[in-house]
Amino acid sequence: MSDVGRSEENGVGVAGPKARGRRRSGARTRERILEVARAEFAARGYDAATLRGIAREAGVDPALVHHYFDGKSDVFTQALDLPEDVSARSAAVMSVPREQLGEAVIRSFLEVWDVPGGRERMQAMLRGAVASEDAARPLREFVLHTVVEPIARSAGVPDPEKRAAVAASQILGIGLLRYVVADTALGKMPSEEVVAIFAPTLQRYLADPQL
Amino acid sequence: MSDVGRSEENGVGVAGPKARGRRRSGARTRERILEVARAEFAARGYDAATLRGIAREAGVDPALVHHYFDGKSDVFTQALDLPEDVSARSAAVMSVPREQLGEAVIRSFLEVWDVPGGRERMQAMLRGAVASEDAARPLREFVLHTVVEPIARSAGVPDPEKRAAVAASQILGIGLLRYVVADTALGKMPSEEVVAIFAPTLQRYLADPQL
Repeated sequence: MSDVGRSEENGVGVAGPKARGRRRSGARTRERILEVARAEFAARGYDAATLRGIAREAGVDPALVHHYFDGKSDVFTQALDLPEDVSARSAAVMSVPREQLGEAVIRSFLEVWDVPGGRERMQAMLRGAVASEDAARPLREFVLHTVVEPIARSAGVPDPEKRAAVAASQILGIGLLRYVVADTALGKMPSEEVVAIFAPTLQRYLADPQL
Repeated sequence: MSDVGRSEENGVGVAGPKARGRRRSGARTRERILEVARAEFAARGYDAATLRGIAREAGVDPALVHHYFDGKSDVFTQALDLPEDVSARSAAVMSVPREQLGEAVIRSFLEVWDVPGGRERMQAMLRGAVASEDAARPLREFVLHTVVEPIARSAGVPDPEKRAAVAASQILGIGLLRYVVADTALGKMPSEEVVAIFAPTLQRYLADPQL
């Protein structure tokens, strides 16, 4: 169902009864691409996997992958059932003045996860992260290299790679204590208080030249 | 082997060949107590489980539990194969001047986990924490109520329960990025740099009246 909805949003769905067969076949192709993508990301990690390689393994033209998905990060987030719009959110965070970066990051994080189903998704993501080093690798590469590192880089301060890992330790720790081991003061805390407590920490980690 | 060693350290071991049977039987009793303890902590959580209840379920006199173990936290850490000496470490941290509390906490954390086998233990602990709410409960209660909350309370600032959860989010996040998803800048970072980065954060969380 969600496949069809998604196709229509992307302008791929075609109206009328004749299109139904094609639409169903499109949904199957999309699903096959995602299946292959899961295997490829698991085997090679996020950075080394390519859309071209995924297309080859799935037996489809690379253009078809680009037709259904908005680039590698879109394939990855959909294959792993992560929140969508990661690139757009990342860009929005990077557009704020540098002195508000920490606050923008924690607000964006809460917008994605303080929602129905957020708890279950965070639990699934952290389970994957602790299952084994291999299972964790694509997620680590994606979260660090695609989401957090560009934000750290946008602040124009030294050591963005180090800062990304340091910030991720606080962000995933909040994920663990607010959503997974949730029966804590952090699980019950109003979101404005979460922002007030963690924005200064993330500001220092991501943008303070003196870290 | 380690059981025998432990007994002797506690002054329980008795020298000479005649003691061997008793010693082996003691090791079996100890192991039975730990087995029952694991089940009791899992069923009731850390706070509600009692040494008296564990003794009853194990079919031994409560005095025998006190003979083999140094209180409930000792039974818990040994049953879950957590680092020993938690109470002693906790007390050492609380004895430093309040303005050094953050640094003492991160140093104590690194002493326990930056050791051979630390990675595997942290992985096992975090796997338990994300497996299910029930599996996480005893560990959450133990870490928050027995380890972190008393430290927050010792700082004499408001809301120790909230501060414990906030500090635990940073500490367990470090555990995740330094030991489990370890191929990151945080996994490779010299311990003195870890202290320099995280001591001010933990100081603010645990002891800054303005948090």
